[in-house]
Amino acid sequence: MYLEEAKKLGDELWVIVACSAMVNHKPKPLLPEKQRLAMLQALKVVDHAVLGDEHDMFKPLTDIQPDIIVLGHDQHFSEVDLERELTSRGINAKVVRVTKHEPCSTCSSGAIIRLVLEKNEVTTHGKLRF
Amino acid sequence: MYLEEAKKLGDELWVIVACSAMVNHKPKPLLPEKQRLAMLQALKVVDHAVLGDEHDMFKPLTDIQPDIIVLGHDQHFSEVDLERELTSRGINAKVVRVTKHEPCSTCSSGAIIRLVLEKNEVTTHGKLRF
Repeated sequence: MYLEEAKKLGDELWVIVACSAMVNHKPKPLLPEKQRLAMLQALKVVDHAVLGDEHDMFKPLTDIQPDIIVLGHDQHFSEVDLERELTSRGINAKVVRVTKHEPCSTCSSGAIIRLVLEKNEVTTHGKLRF
Repeated sequence: MYLEEAKKLGDELWVIVACSAMVNHKPKPLLPEKQRLAMLQALKVVDHAVLGDEHDMFKPLTDIQPDIIVLGHDQHFSEVDLERELTSRGINAKVVRVTKHEPCSTCSSGAIIRLVLEKNEVTTHGKLRF
């Protein structure tokens, strides 16, 4: 949904996949970064997917020079601050946020993880059943 | 990997997604069938994905009339028995099995579920942390 909305805003959709070392504001991703990258690259809606830089989140943006940067509804950046930071680095991109999303109980990795844990709790009282 | 190998064997790749009611030989899928279908349809390698029939697994095959049916390395059908059954229903398809697969600790839904449960066990001794 997020990627489809993003794609509608331009001609070519690039996705930057967070490398695991850069995820410090929430639990580390469960799946290895190479697998997450391959999953994104396999999607019809995605034209190009690349791994983010380990140290500098602006590095791939400097290479790609996008016209528009699309944030998800829950991404923790301010559009105004990000646009200002981009301009200071010579990246003239408009930052927009996709607000439309369907609430769905199984449509995020976090939601699926919670579902696995709840189901395990309910069906086996702590014993692994899968 | 399985889908890519299957795609190489023909021109057009159809995927039949098991409807949840038909899965009785192992635990029911965690994700709803419509979501599993949408995920398959979103993949570049997949030309068409359809939901299987609730009662008759041969129904969609009668509609699609494939030239080749590709089984995964762990699918519980015998190639010979299946081919015989197909012929008796007027479906003249060759049944082949993809044997090539990379062992990968995070490359199946079962493996990911086990990873979630193990990680939860190790990091929190039973308390949900995600």
